[in-house]
Amino acid sequence: MNAIGVIVEYNPFHNGHAYHVRKSREAANADIVAAVMSGPFLQRGEPALISKWARTEMALNAGVDLVVELPYKFATQKAEIFAEGAVAILQALRCKAFCFGSEQGSIEPFIDTYHFLESKSDVFNEKLRLYMDMGNSFPKANALAFKDMSPSSGLLDLSQPNNILGYQYVSAALSREYPISPLTIKRTQAGYHDIALTENPIASATGIRKGLLTEKSNIADIEKYVPASTKEILAHYFIQYRTFHYWELYWPLLKYRILTAAVSELQKIYEVEEGIEYRLKEFAAASTSFQGFMERVKTKRYTWTRIQRICVHILTNTKKEEMCSGNSGPEYIRLLGINNRGRSYLQHIKKKLDLPLISKVGSLKGNSIELDIRAGAVHSLCLRPEDQAGYTKREFLPPVVIEE
Amino acid sequence: MNAIGVIVEYNPFHNGHAYHVRKSREAANADIVAAVMSGPFLQRGEPALISKWARTEMALNAGVDLVVELPYKFATQKAEIFAEGAVAILQALRCKAFCFGSEQGSIEPFIDTYHFLESKSDVFNEKLRLYMDMGNSFPKANALAFKDMSPSSGLLDLSQPNNILGYQYVSAALSREYPISPLTIKRTQAGYHDIALTENPIASATGIRKGLLTEKSNIADIEKYVPASTKEILAHYFIQYRTFHYWELYWPLLKYRILTAAVSELQKIYEVEEGIEYRLKEFAAASTSFQGFMERVKTKRYTWTRIQRICVHILTNTKKEEMCSGNSGPEYIRLLGINNRGRSYLQHIKKKLDLPLISKVGSLKGNSIELDIRAGAVHSLCLRPEDQAGYTKREFLPPVVIEE
Repeated sequence: MNAIGVIVEYNPFHNGHAYHVRKSREAANADIVAAVMSGPFLQRGEPALISKWARTEMALNAGVDLVVELPYKFATQKAEIFAEGAVAILQALRCKAFCFGSEQGSIEPFIDTYHFLESKSDVFNEKLRLYMDMGNSFPKANALAFKDMSPSSGLLDLSQPNNILGYQYVSAALSREYPISPLTIKRTQAGYHDIALTENPIASATGIRKGLLTEKSNIADIEKYVPASTKEILAHYFIQYRTFHYWELYWPLLKYRILTAAVSELQKIYEVEEGIEYRLKEFAAASTSFQGFMERVKTKRYTWTRIQRICVHILTNTKKEEMCSGNSGPEYIRLLGINNRGRSYLQHIKKKLDLPLISKVGSLKGNSIELDIRAGAVHSLCLRPEDQAGYTKREFLPPVVIEE
Repeated sequence: MNAIGVIVEYNPFHNGHAYHVRKSREAANADIVAAVMSGPFLQRGEPALISKWARTEMALNAGVDLVVELPYKFATQKAEIFAEGAVAILQALRCKAFCFGSEQGSIEPFIDTYHFLESKSDVFNEKLRLYMDMGNSFPKANALAFKDMSPSSGLLDLSQPNNILGYQYVSAALSREYPISPLTIKRTQAGYHDIALTENPIASATGIRKGLLTEKSNIADIEKYVPASTKEILAHYFIQYRTFHYWELYWPLLKYRILTAAVSELQKIYEVEEGIEYRLKEFAAASTSFQGFMERVKTKRYTWTRIQRICVHILTNTKKEEMCSGNSGPEYIRLLGINNRGRSYLQHIKKKLDLPLISKVGSLKGNSIELDIRAGAVHSLCLRPEDQAGYTKREFLPPVVIEE
């Protein structure tokens, strides 16, 4: 049996994701599709709309055979670290390839660009530092430095968001000489950041979330952009919890924490540096919403997502020492959900696994799993008091199982 | 000019307090009544029903001439430290006497008991330790040890709550040999802990709060137990903020903090000791209310109020080092409100003050004033987001002034 890996957030699962799963399976002629998925907090520094369990169900219902969790310590990081963790887990799962969507659509320019930048890394890093010293954010400086290198034709357009992310995946695999092969399929519809919903049945997750959150419970509005199972799971979630999860609901907690934490405590939080703790404290008291707070804190030097990630780390009280302890690779494979095919695959590779496979937490100790559990507990805190304990208990039950 | 001091919480101000103010003035034949009043969090480990500013207005409208704040570092402490701080501030204000209500009603038994216990402090402390080792709470062990001493008749009944508190005031004054004279008046009506409202126009603050909180906004129910000005101020507060302040409203913040704080962080919080941090963490996740949480955490060894005070310190993130730093006496006199007579008195004594008199914060730095400001900010967090900043800004404005 062989597996193709995909790196996902499924926030929520939509038709574009279904297309990606189908095409990935075809591209690698794979028996199973294994997804490594972010937990309760996402790469852009946002709470997931719904629990990781509901998102796992969506994935299994729409063609994924096996879902494992990308630990918090990778999921809430800049693209480079996010990619390293995700690719390492797919490699640990013995996937023969992984496949991502990109604007580019063919894999060679990714690989060529990787080798080109590797050979010129000194020059590139020098330029990168220069642009950062000029006050640019890291992604902006990265793009400018790359542009300056005037790469020969045939290289990647690194101004496109999915190309950037894909480049990080390829780079993670090649730099570690993993046997896993990178593959890509072309994204033709719905830009990563598109927010308008259109007639096109493929919309971005951002657009779908906006549809769900702006209209509150209006799930019918996003019906045509998602598989029927996604719609059903969203509706069920909303009936059970009366809400989806979004930043504004956590604002009272974040504000409380920023107001009461000493500056020296904020400085212990991961990614809090360069004095941003003073800006956070300065603007928290007078802000009445997360949006208003973010707009005040934002500067040219910090991207919106970087500040959001800092806010996630403050919210979850994630300290520098918890994120940077010792070995930075994944320490376990946490199984979130599985179907028959996924189970057969796991039987097949079980003896070849280098990392412990966890299907129930409790057996494993350590910063990384504790962070995952704490992040889940924090994610529950926007629910009604009587629903929080139930949500949190789910963490300690076995994975989602779907028999096909 | 001479002043009589009173030690108060006014949560809220009621007819019994008005009686106490009038009788205190008479007892000392004083020109002015100066009150030292708790800020946003109270001795029993509860948030005040309304802001300290509204409570100051109540006091000034009902015969108090001068209100100063009992700093958080005294106000949220066991009776002994509470009393030390309050009496030291009244002494610093050059009050010639202070007057408290007690079940006893005459001052001699307080003074006799103080001298009796002073002379037998070794025996007493031995017994106290013994009873504590048997698993009793501090107040319980204190009462048992005192009872064991079989004091001669004429001594105080230290099983009565207001006698206990008064004894601490007397002890604070005598042990430091302050020139301030202790006085007491007899409380005849409404036990300290009474919760039922009756036909009697004097009800306990506990009973009045219960009337206000159980029926939510039903201020008419408590009308006959409070001066007209109190009623008006309560009504105005509720119209402005749509709520009073009580523990359940802070439960989401407390729960969040307990869930996300590391055990080592909880251990840094003032009064968190003997492993109670594990109990707090154990029961926070599954509790859906503050009341439910408290009932689970409660043990024989800890009084309800002691656990509530611990919860206040966690809520305000008050560390051991902040409460116990260096000199434990008051560092300033913070003026909350004043009328003409109070102002004349301050003019009169200004040159004799040993402590800085603060009428606007900002000039003074240090743990104590920072705690006061932080406690106010936390107290605001149960209000609507758009009201929090206004509430908090009040902290930086001049005192309440009433011209008579």
